[in-house]
Amino acid sequence: MLKGYTLPRTPKGASSLAPTPPWHYVGTCLAVEYEADPGAVRAFLPPGLEFHSPQCAAYFVEWQYASDTGEEYLDPVRSQYRETIILISASHDGAPVAYCPFIWVDQDVSLLRGWAQGWPKMIGSTWITRAYDLPSPATPVVGPGGRFGATLAVKDRRLAEAVVTLREPASQLPSPTFAGAVNTRHFPELAAGLHHQPAVHELVQLKSRDVRISPIWKGEATLTIFDHPYLELPDLRPTRVLAGYRFSCALTVDDLALLRDLRSK
Amino acid sequence: MLKGYTLPRTPKGASSLAPTPPWHYVGTCLAVEYEADPGAVRAFLPPGLEFHSPQCAAYFVEWQYASDTGEEYLDPVRSQYRETIILISASHDGAPVAYCPFIWVDQDVSLLRGWAQGWPKMIGSTWITRAYDLPSPATPVVGPGGRFGATLAVKDRRLAEAVVTLREPASQLPSPTFAGAVNTRHFPELAAGLHHQPAVHELVQLKSRDVRISPIWKGEATLTIFDHPYLELPDLRPTRVLAGYRFSCALTVDDLALLRDLRSK
Amino acid sequence: MLKGYTLPRTPKGASSLAPTPPWHYVGTCLAVEYEADPGAVRAFLPPGLEFHSPQCAAYFVEWQYASDTGEEYLDPVRSQYRETIILISASHDGAPVAYCPFIWVDQDVSLLRGWAQGWPKMIGSTWITRAYDLPSPATPVVGPGGRFGATLAVKDRRLAEAVVTLREPASQLPSPTFAGAVNTRHFPELAAGLHHQPAVHELVQLKSRDVRISPIWKGEATLTIFDHPYLELPDLRPTRVLAGYRFSCALTVDDLALLRDLRSK
Amino acid sequence: MLKGYTLPRTPKGASSLAPTPPWHYVGTCLAVEYEADPGAVRAFLPPGLEFHSPQCAAYFVEWQYASDTGEEYLDPVRSQYRETIILISASHDGAPVAYCPFIWVDQDVSLLRGWAQGWPKMIGSTWITRAYDLPSPATPVVGPGGRFGATLAVKDRRLAEAVVTLREPASQLPSPTFAGAVNTRHFPELAAGLHHQPAVHELVQLKSRDVRISPIWKGEATLTIFDHPYLELPDLRPTRVLAGYRFSCALTVDDLALLRDLRSK
Repeated sequence: MLKGYTLPRTPKGASSLAPTPPWHYVGTCLAVEYEADPGAVRAFLPPGLEFHSPQCAAYFVEWQYASDTGEEYLDPVRSQYRETIILISASHDGAPVAYCPFIWVDQDVSLLRGWAQGWPKMIGSTWITRAYDLPSPATPVVGPGGRFGATLAVKDRRLAEAVVTLREPASQLPSPTFAGAVNTRHFPELAAGLHHQPAVHELVQLKSRDVRISPIWKGEATLTIFDHPYLELPDLRPTRVLAGYRFSCALTVDDLALLRDLRSK
Repeated sequence: MLKGYTLPRTPKGASSLAPTPPWHYVGTCLAVEYEADPGAVRAFLPPGLEFHSPQCAAYFVEWQYASDTGEEYLDPVRSQYRETIILISASHDGAPVAYCPFIWVDQDVSLLRGWAQGWPKMIGSTWITRAYDLPSPATPVVGPGGRFGATLAVKDRRLAEAVVTLREPASQLPSPTFAGAVNTRHFPELAAGLHHQPAVHELVQLKSRDVRISPIWKGEATLTIFDHPYLELPDLRPTRVLAGYRFSCALTVDDLALLRDLRSK
Repeated sequence: MLKGYTLPRTPKGASSLAPTPPWHYVGTCLAVEYEADPGAVRAFLPPGLEFHSPQCAAYFVEWQYASDTGEEYLDPVRSQYRETIILISASHDGAPVAYCPFIWVDQDVSLLRGWAQGWPKMIGSTWITRAYDLPSPATPVVGPGGRFGATLAVKDRRLAEAVVTLREPASQLPSPTFAGAVNTRHFPELAAGLHHQPAVHELVQLKSRDVRISPIWKGEATLTIFDHPYLELPDLRPTRVLAGYRFSCALTVDDLALLRDLRSK
Repeated sequence: MLKGYTLPRTPKGASSLAPTPPWHYVGTCLAVEYEADPGAVRAFLPPGLEFHSPQCAAYFVEWQYASDTGEEYLDPVRSQYRETIILISASHDGAPVAYCPFIWVDQDVSLLRGWAQGWPKMIGSTWITRAYDLPSPATPVVGPGGRFGATLAVKDRRLAEAVVTLREPASQLPSPTFAGAVNTRHFPELAAGLHHQPAVHELVQLKSRDVRISPIWKGEATLTIFDHPYLELPDLRPTRVLAGYRFSCALTVDDLALLRDLRSK
């Protein structure tokens, strides 16, 4: 009998790209809150979500992952990945939610766990300034004046750059935020005639649990999104940058809520 | 209205990881035909397939891809990828077929097109000796005595190595072969309580079309599969190596046949 | 006794990054001949070379390498690399020569062999359209109308893009050409007070031997060089594109000629 | 006039792979102190160093770098790199020193700064467990019982794996240590007849300054070095593992001391 939460399914079930949840994550986030063109934001919303505001956020995150055993982080090429998340504001049944039009990671295991959650993950290269606890011209301080950069490149083109300068502790996370985001789970059909009738097409909401947040630093930011020949991220580029943030976050994923089946009847 | 054959679905539909088929491929293949332990081969077969023989094949392929426009190969980071395919023999309704327990590629666009076809693709690093049409100690000849190597590494561990020495033209492809392979399409559920009831779980058969094969060279081969702490490929390591091959192949994918829904009722 | 042509030098001498020459190479080249601003070309010439013409060439090459044993290409991650070479025109003692201001490769072994020859190699990501001998929308023909692309990215920024459309066979290589290029060998001092007095600073000319060239295809081309925050390649961007080329080349390197010691006395 | 501390030398001097020192570094280190076969250690020592003890150390480091401007860490693909350092014990004029037979980094800028210091750097892939300041199954604690892993792969083969379990604060760094290491600066000749007479071949000692060390954690460790077809690191594999360490380190490099010219007269 073949076993495995995802492909490849094998006799022992040890080879599948993602193991059965729960999946535990901890990461350090650099974030930029900004506004985009309201019409562009509206155009990216799937059925079931309504326009709420033009406020968006870009997150650049250095994650470490483990299953319940915790063993993955001892072979860290299995566990660590870097991610860029773009979130736009929306409302669902009158409640404000976050929706993800674009997200990039640099590991296949993260990509597949993401597709199970409806994150539209593609492979991209994210780099984020680190902080070290020693005085050196080679590191910013985690405190007033500390400057942190982040970049995203996709298929050998730089797509985004951010710089955040910390100013003061803050009590609130940037908004929109990712822990309870609304996503679209989608899996296509390939049989002839069915290319436009996906096998899975669902609006879902994440139910992250055991969410823990470190002290939050806030300050000013810049965010540049570069032109691209086919990726539509530049349609969501900043018209105004609101603030920058730095914090760490831990959470566990093993559930989600189905909001609506988007398949046409 | 959001458009796109896969996620991410966007207003213009230009951003999705895989465009609507057809998908056109051309590749140069180094292949090793071998026998594995019959019990191991049997253990990897999904419901709906029966054991046919212990014969397996490993393919190492340097592919180039394009949609109907052909434009992707002008920005080749979008188009080219390298792949290692492991195929085992099986029979379906009495007819011999190929089944794929493991396959690795090095690009996300190939990974996602693969998942739509039921290929259990993961990210891996494949390297294959190239042939050049000039006399040089730096290239083998495509002819008697020409030696070609191939290697596979996954997450910083070498998993397989092959060397093929060409001897003579051949009229038959290695067996099992990939163009009409039987795969398992699978997409998991994440909602609590449903982790063992996938949303999609289907036995399917590829319907590649416009398959074209170059002249085929055949010879002897070695194939080494290394131990691995969790990937089960070593269970399918060679007990006897039969032959090595080198050829090129072109094909188009835009259809498949559903053989059986594997979801439990 | 430690042995090795380069570091690391070890008891068996098997570990050094580059083995003792000869070094054998074979590669497929996509090239664009173009003119840059004459003042910019002049500004890039080292002492000992004079301005000759504003003609430049960009080469995108997919190489395979071997030492005398030929074994490296059977473990092709040791042997294969992709390269972008920029050449400008110059004259030395009245004779026209090529000089290399910029060159990028994707393997350390190539980088170090390059530094020994005076090539100012840095790590970059080069992609080049391949040709396959089968009819497919996924490959250009090596013949009239065949279109080939190439791209260069450095540290997650795209720096150059070219497209060549083949029109007809040609009897001449693009100019300037790389086999007998003039380079600057340079190795810095680190001791305090000596940072501006390099240990090695020489104008040298390559003495490639056993150079073999395939039939050459020529046609029209485009070449775009993108802005960059610190790399000065954009100063050498095209004011006029002359022609595009595709050909293969084999050569052996185990010698060079010292033209001039550039160290100040 | 061309400018640049290293190649490529250009009109503005902004393009060279390494800028003029000082070079500032800060990094987090996982280290394993161990003993190797005394005869093997002795065999790796260059002229000018004598055998001192069989004690070795392996360091796995996640570095961030900046020049005096500090700007590099805001575009972190220019600044960050991961490194594996192997050090053996030696004595020079009766004083104990560290000598580096092997070292791997993952960025060209680090490779070239290293060669200027005599570090025999090659490109390799290092991964190291990170610690986060939040309770999560996805991170070890920096404290008693915290387990950290590190791995090294070179050209698609895993070469080393370590696991360190922290037990208690320590007041001493692992030995041998890298800040004042003795290295071999070496740059080959390529002209025919001179392949065995390097242009530069010097025994040097690093003069790192502004060295700062964080609190040090110590515990037990495992270290596995895998067989390799040509790299001689397995000759230095552990016969006994002594201890594991975790700490951070900052230092500045802009000088070194010439101990001895190793060129034959």
